[in-house]
Amino acid sequence: MAAPSSNTCGLTERSIRERVPPLLTDLYQVTMAYAYWRTGRHQEPAVFELFFRNNPFGGGFTLFAGLQDCLLFLRSFRFTDEDVEFLRSVLPPATDPAFFQFLRGLDCSGVTLRAIPEGTVVFARVPLMEVAGPLAVVQLLETSLLCLVNYASLVCSNAARFRLAAGPKRKLLELGLRRAQGPDGGLTASRYTHIGGFDFTSNVQAGFQYGVPVAGTMAHSYVTSFTSLEEVLPKTLVAVNGDSTPVDIILLTKGWLSRVCELLGSQPGKIHEGELAAFLSYAIAYPQNFLPVIDSFSVGCSGLLNFCAVALALCELDYKPLGVRLDSGDLCRQSLEVRRVFRLCSEHFSVSAFDSLTIVGTNNITEQSMAELNEKENEIDVVGVGTHLVTCTQQPSLGCVYKLVEVRASPRMKISEDPEKSTVPGRKAVYRLIDAEGHAFLDLVCLVAEAPPEAGVSVSCYPLSCDTSCVSVIPAQVICLRQDMFTKGQVTQPLCNATETRAKVQSSLQTLHPRHKRLQEPDSYTVALSEKLHTLVTEIRKGSSNNSNFLLAN
Amino acid sequence: MAAPSSNTCGLTERSIRERVPPLLTDLYQVTMAYAYWRTGRHQEPAVFELFFRNNPFGGGFTLFAGLQDCLLFLRSFRFTDEDVEFLRSVLPPATDPAFFQFLRGLDCSGVTLRAIPEGTVVFARVPLMEVAGPLAVVQLLETSLLCLVNYASLVCSNAARFRLAAGPKRKLLELGLRRAQGPDGGLTASRYTHIGGFDFTSNVQAGFQYGVPVAGTMAHSYVTSFTSLEEVLPKTLVAVNGDSTPVDIILLTKGWLSRVCELLGSQPGKIHEGELAAFLSYAIAYPQNFLPVIDSFSVGCSGLLNFCAVALALCELDYKPLGVRLDSGDLCRQSLEVRRVFRLCSEHFSVSAFDSLTIVGTNNITEQSMAELNEKENEIDVVGVGTHLVTCTQQPSLGCVYKLVEVRASPRMKISEDPEKSTVPGRKAVYRLIDAEGHAFLDLVCLVAEAPPEAGVSVSCYPLSCDTSCVSVIPAQVICLRQDMFTKGQVTQPLCNATETRAKVQSSLQTLHPRHKRLQEPDSYTVALSEKLHTLVTEIRKGSSNNSNFLLAN
Repeated sequence: MAAPSSNTCGLTERSIRERVPPLLTDLYQVTMAYAYWRTGRHQEPAVFELFFRNNPFGGGFTLFAGLQDCLLFLRSFRFTDEDVEFLRSVLPPATDPAFFQFLRGLDCSGVTLRAIPEGTVVFARVPLMEVAGPLAVVQLLETSLLCLVNYASLVCSNAARFRLAAGPKRKLLELGLRRAQGPDGGLTASRYTHIGGFDFTSNVQAGFQYGVPVAGTMAHSYVTSFTSLEEVLPKTLVAVNGDSTPVDIILLTKGWLSRVCELLGSQPGKIHEGELAAFLSYAIAYPQNFLPVIDSFSVGCSGLLNFCAVALALCELDYKPLGVRLDSGDLCRQSLEVRRVFRLCSEHFSVSAFDSLTIVGTNNITEQSMAELNEKENEIDVVGVGTHLVTCTQQPSLGCVYKLVEVRASPRMKISEDPEKSTVPGRKAVYRLIDAEGHAFLDLVCLVAEAPPEAGVSVSCYPLSCDTSCVSVIPAQVICLRQDMFTKGQVTQPLCNATETRAKVQSSLQTLHPRHKRLQEPDSYTVALSEKLHTLVTEIRKGSSNNSNFLLAN
Repeated sequence: MAAPSSNTCGLTERSIRERVPPLLTDLYQVTMAYAYWRTGRHQEPAVFELFFRNNPFGGGFTLFAGLQDCLLFLRSFRFTDEDVEFLRSVLPPATDPAFFQFLRGLDCSGVTLRAIPEGTVVFARVPLMEVAGPLAVVQLLETSLLCLVNYASLVCSNAARFRLAAGPKRKLLELGLRRAQGPDGGLTASRYTHIGGFDFTSNVQAGFQYGVPVAGTMAHSYVTSFTSLEEVLPKTLVAVNGDSTPVDIILLTKGWLSRVCELLGSQPGKIHEGELAAFLSYAIAYPQNFLPVIDSFSVGCSGLLNFCAVALALCELDYKPLGVRLDSGDLCRQSLEVRRVFRLCSEHFSVSAFDSLTIVGTNNITEQSMAELNEKENEIDVVGVGTHLVTCTQQPSLGCVYKLVEVRASPRMKISEDPEKSTVPGRKAVYRLIDAEGHAFLDLVCLVAEAPPEAGVSVSCYPLSCDTSCVSVIPAQVICLRQDMFTKGQVTQPLCNATETRAKVQSSLQTLHPRHKRLQEPDSYTVALSEKLHTLVTEIRKGSSNNSNFLLAN
């Protein structure tokens, strides 16, 4: 059954300290913090940026997620005495004890975070978050922030792709908990796949903690645990309306089974009694939510017949059965046959409830098989996806990085021999340019001190894809992408629950032209540097900038 | 630096309830539990088995991990009032209120768990765990147990493969936290990759919580944050032995830099002053643990020269530098050049410390690049692996399943149209047969009531790979693979810490013949059913067994 959750406590700070203690970081963050402290630079104002270098899954877009957890993490960031004692045991014995006092007193009251809102469509190399504050502190935050953004954004983007592949009408159910990277991985997956466009999750805790609607009915083990109709208790059911005399539902069902077999020309001898017992006991427990899995033995020879018999008996008592689940074989082909039988029963026995039964399909669905399913004729209303959704089989990591761009108001740049690994220096502002049709067409990365681009005014910029040539564009509308999210130890924007962020995802995807949303070989979206930023990059690269730092003399 | 952790609290039950609350399960477990309860079958004794169908990564073996967390989960399994209230909001309104009282009183005091010890080499289709107890309870445990075993075993097996690919001498460092499936995924990865054969982790929390040795030194951001030698403070260092007068380490290093440039014929003009400042400040903070990353600009033109200069200055003051890290480009080629320069310095300046410097390599290492690295000439002593290790790129899920095999002492079997998805019925015992050379050669799955196979006595069995033909084998030794692990609410075996389980992994891998450990196209290991079990399967399949459950009459 699919029951929308009544709990919407997705905003609570529950267990963020438990999930992301400050020691959940790479040791080098701590060793660097000490070296900064030792040389007296730990309080220097520094700015880091978080971004990724390529859209995942060969796609044309990414969804930014994980921000809310980052904000809660910043708010709770503090080393306990126990943490500090452990660090003392790990760092070299000669480490100055005053450093540990410094660590004990640290928090994020000096940290400012500007970010693109969670659930926004974003692109490679656009800085999603800017983290500014004392050098040692913002360095210490790196690994945790990356960990919180990387998987959340990846799995949210994956869900959005499955959503696109499935088409708008089909409902999507996430059921990957057992295949995720452990318990918290599973919970994170359920939360962010819902945000990315899935309708339900099988994960009860995700319903409890984040208000994601939960769904689920029965496994094969329930079916195979029954062998005989003797095991069905109670054996009666009371009709919804009218007569309150308990009806022998077993007898009623057996009668319907005969008629169904006759209608379909099926052999009763191939029908599993245990399966019928399982369906009956389930229907007695859930007369208004009957949706069994019908492929434990054979859909055509047993499961479908047993379902129809029990469902017809329920209908006779004025209950409304929900449907069936198929969990193996060719889902499309089977769904057509199942629907044909439902229609036949509806006509032959005049039960209109059989016209609106739901067919759920679950069987190792990939993005590709989802897309194929959307193209082939079939009657599947709800698709359940597990492994390939939560583990992101196509590309199991996003590869976000966190790079230093400014220290003491002076821009910093990593010039790598691999040009893709070079960073863009300086503190920035990011604008999204919208065309006359309302489609986003270019993200412009500027220096923060520059005047923002204006609607209707031509702006020159340098697309990152081609390193030298300048282009001019005229936006119909300009959106400033990043907002202040955290300052002076406080979260400065209202936190959204999963439902709100989910709506944000869909509206943000709406602004993107379909050509960028094609799952295969999409047109790439343009990200460009402003002229001033491009000049700064060129100057630093030439070593001719004022920030030259070559050792010219010994 | 690499500091073995002083904390070995891997056995604590900390946060297992927080990590794996009883609601962290698929909704259908709860809906089935109610249906069992409603039909009065919830207390029936039932047995489930947990196993996987294929070794991961196309390999010949798997390592079983996650058991300890399963045991702690069983011990703490209990619904709170809040949990039950949430379930009440999700289940249909007509659900009998007495069911929620039943849930509130549930625990695992009636559950027995037999399992193969954690860290053992295991194979596809061998039941790793047998969970026996009241039907409704053991059904409710399914998702959580799968979630705890699936990723732990997968990433542990992946680590063991990287360990085999790397060869025995090289040290391995795990640094995947930022790319894992969220915080707990990262922590799980650090714990089980250590168990699988990695030596260190960068993850401090894994050191704190599980006693995994932690390691790490500096990132590129540390280097790029410096521009000038002016930023180095203090500018002096005191020699280890003898004279306590502070020495001007900057001056000393500049002198060494001149000599190094002269020795190598390098141009001082290409040396980054910021990088030198970063190295110097780091060396002053960690004079006994100096190991910088040397590729921020150019290894040959800047990083290596700066390292040698600082390290030679340290040596002059009787400190012992540790080595360097390479993080981009062709690691093998660069390591050879770096080693050549170290040897040259050692000879030319008579500093023996340069003979034992460590070279760490980290750059998007895959299993394949690790294997190539092991075949090519290189001088890398420590390899750091992140993304491909923790996300298991090659195959990001193991696919463990949990299947019902017995109810009320009667065997149960799922007969699927897909033969691989059929299950093996009945309660079992599992024996590992060892040959005269001490190598495991066959895992025998028997019915629990059968006499165990004996050393030196021929035993007939049916390998699972070929469905019909019988083979006879004579074991030199027989090991009973599974042990009682949990009964009457208590864990009945001593829990092992990560170090102990890590040793178990290596000794278990030792018993496996190398032909099964080949990373590509290994010989497959034989798993076989006993004659009696094979007969039972055949009977049930034919529908001719005593447990026939076809509906023969309406």
